[in-house]
Amino acid sequence: MKTQRIVVPALEEILYKDHKVLDHGFIRVIDYMGDDSSVVQAARVSYGKGTKHVNQDAGLINYLMRHSHTTPFEMCEIKFHVKLPIFVARQWIRHRTASVNEYSARYSVLDKEFYIPDHSQISEQSCDNAQGRGEVLPEEFSQEVIDIFQHDAALTYSNYSKFLERGLAREISRINLTLNCYTQWYWKVNLHNLLKFIKLRADKHAQYEIRVYAETMLDIVKLWVPLTYNAFVEYCLEAKALSRNALNVIRKLIDGQEVSRESSGMSKREWNDVMMILEK
Amino acid sequence: MKTQRIVVPALEEILYKDHKVLDHGFIRVIDYMGDDSSVVQAARVSYGKGTKHVNQDAGLINYLMRHSHTTPFEMCEIKFHVKLPIFVARQWIRHRTASVNEYSARYSVLDKEFYIPDHSQISEQSCDNAQGRGEVLPEEFSQEVIDIFQHDAALTYSNYSKFLERGLAREISRINLTLNCYTQWYWKVNLHNLLKFIKLRADKHAQYEIRVYAETMLDIVKLWVPLTYNAFVEYCLEAKALSRNALNVIRKLIDGQEVSRESSGMSKREWNDVMMILEK
Amino acid sequence: MKTQRIVVPALEEILYKDHKVLDHGFIRVIDYMGDDSSVVQAARVSYGKGTKHVNQDAGLINYLMRHSHTTPFEMCEIKFHVKLPIFVARQWIRHRTASVNEYSARYSVLDKEFYIPDHSQISEQSCDNAQGRGEVLPEEFSQEVIDIFQHDAALTYSNYSKFLERGLAREISRINLTLNCYTQWYWKVNLHNLLKFIKLRADKHAQYEIRVYAETMLDIVKLWVPLTYNAFVEYCLEAKALSRNALNVIRKLIDGQEVSRESSGMSKREWNDVMMILEK
Amino acid sequence: MKTQRIVVPALEEILYKDHKVLDHGFIRVIDYMGDDSSVVQAARVSYGKGTKHVNQDAGLINYLMRHSHTTPFEMCEIKFHVKLPIFVARQWIRHRTASVNEYSARYSVLDKEFYIPDHSQISEQSCDNAQGRGEVLPEEFSQEVIDIFQHDAALTYSNYSKFLERGLAREISRINLTLNCYTQWYWKVNLHNLLKFIKLRADKHAQYEIRVYAETMLDIVKLWVPLTYNAFVEYCLEAKALSRNALNVIRKLIDGQEVSRESSGMSKREWNDVMMILEK
Repeated sequence: MKTQRIVVPALEEILYKDHKVLDHGFIRVIDYMGDDSSVVQAARVSYGKGTKHVNQDAGLINYLMRHSHTTPFEMCEIKFHVKLPIFVARQWIRHRTASVNEYSARYSVLDKEFYIPDHSQISEQSCDNAQGRGEVLPEEFSQEVIDIFQHDAALTYSNYSKFLERGLAREISRINLTLNCYTQWYWKVNLHNLLKFIKLRADKHAQYEIRVYAETMLDIVKLWVPLTYNAFVEYCLEAKALSRNALNVIRKLIDGQEVSRESSGMSKREWNDVMMILEK
Repeated sequence: MKTQRIVVPALEEILYKDHKVLDHGFIRVIDYMGDDSSVVQAARVSYGKGTKHVNQDAGLINYLMRHSHTTPFEMCEIKFHVKLPIFVARQWIRHRTASVNEYSARYSVLDKEFYIPDHSQISEQSCDNAQGRGEVLPEEFSQEVIDIFQHDAALTYSNYSKFLERGLAREISRINLTLNCYTQWYWKVNLHNLLKFIKLRADKHAQYEIRVYAETMLDIVKLWVPLTYNAFVEYCLEAKALSRNALNVIRKLIDGQEVSRESSGMSKREWNDVMMILEK
Repeated sequence: MKTQRIVVPALEEILYKDHKVLDHGFIRVIDYMGDDSSVVQAARVSYGKGTKHVNQDAGLINYLMRHSHTTPFEMCEIKFHVKLPIFVARQWIRHRTASVNEYSARYSVLDKEFYIPDHSQISEQSCDNAQGRGEVLPEEFSQEVIDIFQHDAALTYSNYSKFLERGLAREISRINLTLNCYTQWYWKVNLHNLLKFIKLRADKHAQYEIRVYAETMLDIVKLWVPLTYNAFVEYCLEAKALSRNALNVIRKLIDGQEVSRESSGMSKREWNDVMMILEK
Repeated sequence: MKTQRIVVPALEEILYKDHKVLDHGFIRVIDYMGDDSSVVQAARVSYGKGTKHVNQDAGLINYLMRHSHTTPFEMCEIKFHVKLPIFVARQWIRHRTASVNEYSARYSVLDKEFYIPDHSQISEQSCDNAQGRGEVLPEEFSQEVIDIFQHDAALTYSNYSKFLERGLAREISRINLTLNCYTQWYWKVNLHNLLKFIKLRADKHAQYEIRVYAETMLDIVKLWVPLTYNAFVEYCLEAKALSRNALNVIRKLIDGQEVSRESSGMSKREWNDVMMILEK
């Protein structure tokens, strides 16, 4: 149909289409509002003639992103249909500034679909990262894990089905299902809060299973608002915040002075993080 | 341009057009996302087969509105460009769940435009409503008020201009302007929060000058999502919440029993309010 | 210790103490800010002399509640430590305007505790309520359900433990656990949003397992802010919103006129709901 | 009175006391919840044994701040009574995640108090900062500005008073007042959002008149949560975010290589900002 609104041809092409994520999940763009020019338009109503020295859209968007002038990025909106495992949904929902309608297992019957990790994701507990994964485990063990995941999911789902057949209320029957069971929802969010989500969840410290959703959404952002995407990568995703102490160390290093962890005021962890940033 | 998104022809027709409000203000719809069917779509993902007994969109929307199932109404979004007096902006901004970019008088120069009330709005302080207006005042007095408003606005604006010309910083110069000076902003909000705004600000207790903005937006809602508009009027705008005590009184009245304020448990104010509802 | 802040002796007495909920859950009050007088104080800064006609605290609080002047109720804050099944946590977290820190199964090992419903909660699917429960099922069947819940929880937890022992990352191991597994969190919320939570979750349409948490919190509200509690029960919890059509029917009934569902403009569901309200 | 809650003696000492700000403004702490240990407590419920490697509170708080793990900082809450000019209130209220009750000029009469800047604040428009102030203007001119501010405020207030005396509704009478008129409110916010406010408003780009409020609140934060204060200064207030390009330049500089603005990918503005950071 015809519209007078802002249209993004690259996004129109993928509208309603599945982006596969994990074994049974997906992300679909259902609707969107605005594009890069909407960010610029909102900034210009704020700054009026104050923006004339930044007379190109890319320059203005870079400026906004670099100075954390975030409100113009709230002027774009996007709506996704997402299918995802419940344990991923539990992390996702912690992002409060979004609208959500989730499939309700009080009203309806959940599909028989479970997330079963690949061998490549059956990893040991990380030694240096209390929340993460380390090395992949031997295939013998990982096969055993996969078998148990499949067995337990099948068992609990068959009990769930049996309960429903025999008339047990849906809202009780479902409590026996496992956390890798899939759910789905509509998730609507503005561009600013979407970028915050991606920043946190596309990070290497995020759990793999939510990271792949965040990465898919980052690809979608690139199609939707390419100037904002560039600014986001440059000033946010691949930028680093350096503390007062870290900046002092850097000034000394540039000056050719000696530095040491002990005199820097930094903890071991921060020192290591900073050194890694400087070497990369 | 062509889009695969949901399109609302009635809203397309008024897109970007001015709806005049007050003497110099306006509301323009700049963009929108979704329509009544988006509310239904979101509800159906939540309730799945649970919605099959409400198999028509209007019925489902009425049901959602009546039971305060508000999240599906968050799935529609609208963006306005609004020009409004500063004292109205100060009330409006108290609605926190929206995105705003306001024209900044730190960056730019404000226009020489002030809200000067009509004679019909130059009213005395209400006796029974601590926040409101009572009778219109005699035209002799109201003309005097208008003259003073015009004089003081012109004087302070001319000082503002003089300051700017002589190089005083904009952010200081503006502090001398009066509260009836016009500002403007982009205001983006979802349908649920828009309805909350309208409910509060189209109410007869709201100040006239914000009420006219709310009423204009209500007309726009009617064009945009007619089923939601009907449900909103029926179950929200013209509905009344009745307290436990008020319900008891009503049951007795229907039963033909005598009732009295004293035995009702209600305050005089509530009693009067309830009696007015029942007589209307 | 001594403080100059507002102190609520009745709440001090239960501070840090367990209120048992379900089989292994609890609610503990960890901290609080303000009391009824804080609501009054905030209202009086808003209305100034405008509040002098409501010169008693209870009257003012009733007035605020009745007219949905909600912001003064945001001036009180409370923090809970809650232990609850994951499927309850998933409903709870949909209330976005609160602060939460949840026990993370990426960092730590979950306890071996599962919610197993009582016989009294093993009910059939409701016929007239798509989301709810109907009659309790025969004990023979309910015992079978309980046995299966216990078996499946024990099995999946033992596999979880085995995975952890053999070095599988915590964040993967946990995805095999069932939704009745217990989690815990700190939940901090202002009084206004707490009342919204209670209104929705202490309702008879809420799932039993979250309702018992909401009811426990309602008891705590009664200790904390007794005037607000009374106003909440009177004007919110036991109040009813009546639509334009319902009000018309009521006016006719009081007037002794005949009414019928067909001419009322109401759906069957609304008509039944209204009739039930009037008969109660 | 006695309480079992967490008490901060340094904050108790200043409770309810005025911190003078500007010529007639003030900030008073009215209530608070929690201290540094509440942040730690919330983090430990999240991370459980995952926090054992950071076994001191200061270390844990630094870690949380450095990695933007912001939710534990939401577990502390503070309430202020603030008196401030209306043009400052208009900037302040843009921080949406807080609770506010403002003195209403619809219900009550505003005091005859206006913010009149000192000579030291009567500055020219900044050349390089579209929103800011440059050099102080000659005293001859600044005296003229002050005289006009005083004259116009006195004039419009006297008209306001006259209107009220003659019975004009308060909600209309006030629209003639100037933006430097004082208002007051209760403002309640959690520690995380308070720090966001301070970060933005204690910044040198913030307008002087709101900056002095933010600085006063920073002093209060230091008394209230000294460990969080230190972490905030180190990892947020005096930290800098460096873009991907800026980090590349720094790596080259440390390595002793030549760098140039042209080959850096940075805009002139960013280049200058980065060079200033490295030289400081």
